[in-house]
Amino acid sequence: MLFMVEMEVNIPDSADPAVVQKKLADEKARAQELQKSGVWRHLWRVAGQYANVSVFDVESPVALHDIMLSLPLFPYMKTKVTALCRHPSSIHDDDR
Amino acid sequence: MLFMVEMEVNIPDSADPAVVQKKLADEKARAQELQKSGVWRHLWRVAGQYANVSVFDVESPVALHDIMLSLPLFPYMKTKVTALCRHPSSIHDDDR
Amino acid sequence: MLFMVEMEVNIPDSADPAVVQKKLADEKARAQELQKSGVWRHLWRVAGQYANVSVFDVESPVALHDIMLSLPLFPYMKTKVTALCRHPSSIHDDDR
Amino acid sequence: MLFMVEMEVNIPDSADPAVVQKKLADEKARAQELQKSGVWRHLWRVAGQYANVSVFDVESPVALHDIMLSLPLFPYMKTKVTALCRHPSSIHDDDR
Amino acid sequence: MLFMVEMEVNIPDSADPAVVQKKLADEKARAQELQKSGVWRHLWRVAGQYANVSVFDVESPVALHDIMLSLPLFPYMKTKVTALCRHPSSIHDDDR
Amino acid sequence: MLFMVEMEVNIPDSADPAVVQKKLADEKARAQELQKSGVWRHLWRVAGQYANVSVFDVESPVALHDIMLSLPLFPYMKTKVTALCRHPSSIHDDDR
Amino acid sequence: MLFMVEMEVNIPDSADPAVVQKKLADEKARAQELQKSGVWRHLWRVAGQYANVSVFDVESPVALHDIMLSLPLFPYMKTKVTALCRHPSSIHDDDR
Amino acid sequence: MLFMVEMEVNIPDSADPAVVQKKLADEKARAQELQKSGVWRHLWRVAGQYANVSVFDVESPVALHDIMLSLPLFPYMKTKVTALCRHPSSIHDDDR
Amino acid sequence: MLFMVEMEVNIPDSADPAVVQKKLADEKARAQELQKSGVWRHLWRVAGQYANVSVFDVESPVALHDIMLSLPLFPYMKTKVTALCRHPSSIHDDDR
Amino acid sequence: MLFMVEMEVNIPDSADPAVVQKKLADEKARAQELQKSGVWRHLWRVAGQYANVSVFDVESPVALHDIMLSLPLFPYMKTKVTALCRHPSSIHDDDR
Repeated sequence: MLFMVEMEVNIPDSADPAVVQKKLADEKARAQELQKSGVWRHLWRVAGQYANVSVFDVESPVALHDIMLSLPLFPYMKTKVTALCRHPSSIHDDDR
Repeated sequence: MLFMVEMEVNIPDSADPAVVQKKLADEKARAQELQKSGVWRHLWRVAGQYANVSVFDVESPVALHDIMLSLPLFPYMKTKVTALCRHPSSIHDDDR
Repeated sequence: MLFMVEMEVNIPDSADPAVVQKKLADEKARAQELQKSGVWRHLWRVAGQYANVSVFDVESPVALHDIMLSLPLFPYMKTKVTALCRHPSSIHDDDR
Repeated sequence: MLFMVEMEVNIPDSADPAVVQKKLADEKARAQELQKSGVWRHLWRVAGQYANVSVFDVESPVALHDIMLSLPLFPYMKTKVTALCRHPSSIHDDDR
Repeated sequence: MLFMVEMEVNIPDSADPAVVQKKLADEKARAQELQKSGVWRHLWRVAGQYANVSVFDVESPVALHDIMLSLPLFPYMKTKVTALCRHPSSIHDDDR
Repeated sequence: MLFMVEMEVNIPDSADPAVVQKKLADEKARAQELQKSGVWRHLWRVAGQYANVSVFDVESPVALHDIMLSLPLFPYMKTKVTALCRHPSSIHDDDR
Repeated sequence: MLFMVEMEVNIPDSADPAVVQKKLADEKARAQELQKSGVWRHLWRVAGQYANVSVFDVESPVALHDIMLSLPLFPYMKTKVTALCRHPSSIHDDDR
Repeated sequence: MLFMVEMEVNIPDSADPAVVQKKLADEKARAQELQKSGVWRHLWRVAGQYANVSVFDVESPVALHDIMLSLPLFPYMKTKVTALCRHPSSIHDDDR
Repeated sequence: MLFMVEMEVNIPDSADPAVVQKKLADEKARAQELQKSGVWRHLWRVAGQYANVSVFDVESPVALHDIMLSLPLFPYMKTKVTALCRHPSSIHDDDR
Repeated sequence: MLFMVEMEVNIPDSADPAVVQKKLADEKARAQELQKSGVWRHLWRVAGQYANVSVFDVESPVALHDIMLSLPLFPYMKTKVTALCRHPSSIHDDDR
């Protein structure tokens, strides 16, 4: 099933630069790992903002939550989660 | 280039049922036509609402606007448009 | 899996009273049918408002959406859907 | 009587990690104690956010407030409280 | 126990004047009846708006809801309900 | 004349605990002093939040402002002020 | 004492034009009458909107409310009321 | 001086089509007349919405308001006005 | 021409008290200087908040902005600017 | 194609003054460089706020995003991006 997750990242000015750099690198690695597994189906950057629009293909809300917890930048995120389903006018069979 | 468009449909109670039925049928036909052309890349229903999340692959904002104007239900829509671009962590080349 | 759905009902003043009465009766019947099936797990009235807080136990967002579409009052509803999952501090095993 | 409480937790980046760890452990213990007593009736995690949806079964608003004050993470919480009552279509007798 | 209810009244321009007049008279009578019973503890007009701030002294959220349903103008109201309790600095014993 | 003041208190995590404790004690003393004088007519705790709903009986907005400035916690407060007046359906003469 | 009132006027498309014209004329007459009396101290048009910013010099919130009720366009208004008082840096004595 | 005006047009479903068509034609004529005079400096369509972003070069807020009043679609508009001035980093002299 | 500026002041808890005191004194001096010049036409305190409502009589938005930049507390301010003009019902000639 | 970007700058009180000064100088240089290239088409200051309204003429959302990332003050910005296109009533050919 699909969930859209809109993530807005706010890294406080007071955060330790070294810690932040490490988190950024780990975040990229984790994101690419999840994309390769097919779970992180779409990942787009919102033009002009430190934010992204993502679509996850997961078994359940619990699975989605575990993925979000696994993201190094999660503590700096403000997220909005929207449950999606196949649109009656969609021509794609796998947009469940 | 990609634009996310979130469409919320509110058909007034006073609208003529026959007119509405015609518009709904035309909307479905138009949506499927645009999907087949590759312009309407993703069309998902928001679970629990008369709303959808769509991603369009167009040449420009003008092209996007013309497409929206061509949707029979456009007069009943409240829309939010978000310009997207390829995320630096994306593994997909064509998520421009 | 569980979804919280907050439903706010606004019946326009201009709606045909007979139509509304029929919808209200059908809504109650449908709600009780779904509760007996275990799908509509919790249904509470928000004190002081024509609104409710519900929790659905469904297979997927699609199943949730089909249920919402089946509610006679759906056209008069403003809804907010929140995907839930088991809290790490929960002592209940079935609060998936 | 039932109150829904939506709790959003924001732990400032500057908080002392040791203090935070202690609070998290105490919060879990307190939450499980209250669930066992039947007062904390439902506790769900909001998928994708550091937030929960809870339903408390208490004697009065005062009792609810005392419970909230007793939660170690309360100072880091943004809460929304909604008074609930039995829905006329509910098939459950004890959803008072 | 006490609940603050903020009521904003919006009577549509299209409403039948005779129906509205009757509802206004019935609303006043009902409000005064409830005040005499001690249930409707405070009723203030918000200066400059067709709105009021009220405090109800009731047994439970259900009791509050039944009272709101009994108000002739309820269908025209937008309400906000806030559960109150005795403040630790209050010098009044009965502000439960 | 009456003013409702809704006060939300947010004490920053970085505030000096000793300073905060002193302010809390002074706030309680000041609040009780004002209640005894009849100026602070109603003081209720909002259930589940570090916030209160108060009603002040003062000579003018200036008097109200001076009172608010005199509250030790004022610098940590977010406030909303609503001017009240006697409701035409009120049975109380002194709810001016 | 002074109250700022921000008034936004929304005349429904379905309103009877003759009724509206009469109300507009009466509104102007009433506004000028109140300005001459000194009660309606300031009346400015918000550039680009069917809205105004006004400052009233009245005895109490009740007096303000009665004035607002006396405005023919009041039923079409959305208002925001702000209680004002003399600023400590003001060089004007009568900005009470 | 420059004012940005964001205009959102909502034509009610119940409006008389003939009246609307006339207003649309008059609006276009008026807009082009004002652009030729240099007053309406920029007029852009917001992609995907029945809304525009405009920049007016006028003598004063009053002049701006008179222009807005002269637009046939003004009664159907929701507007937001932002006063602009030359940015210290601007390389254009006439962006006053 | 007239601009209403609503200023909300938030001085961070971490600000250096000596710096703040100096800014407060300078702010008062600057405000009184501008009032004497007739530019700062009205300055009212919002009752119950660290905020003010002001009306400036200036040559242009640029002039307004330069004034705002000159206020020592500007870095701590959240402002809302509303362009005003003479209301057609105003009896004052100089409320341009 | 054109994008409007509304930028609100919030420099935290705790930021290192030297770092901030350097960023401000670099921001101005970068902004003027982009204006000279024709990419940053319009840059206006919002009167009374530390914010600007800009219009960019770019090849794609990606190009826009890279420009925003290149702005030294970007980490301190809250931005809103609006995709624009030529208005059917526009008399300018190049307002694409």
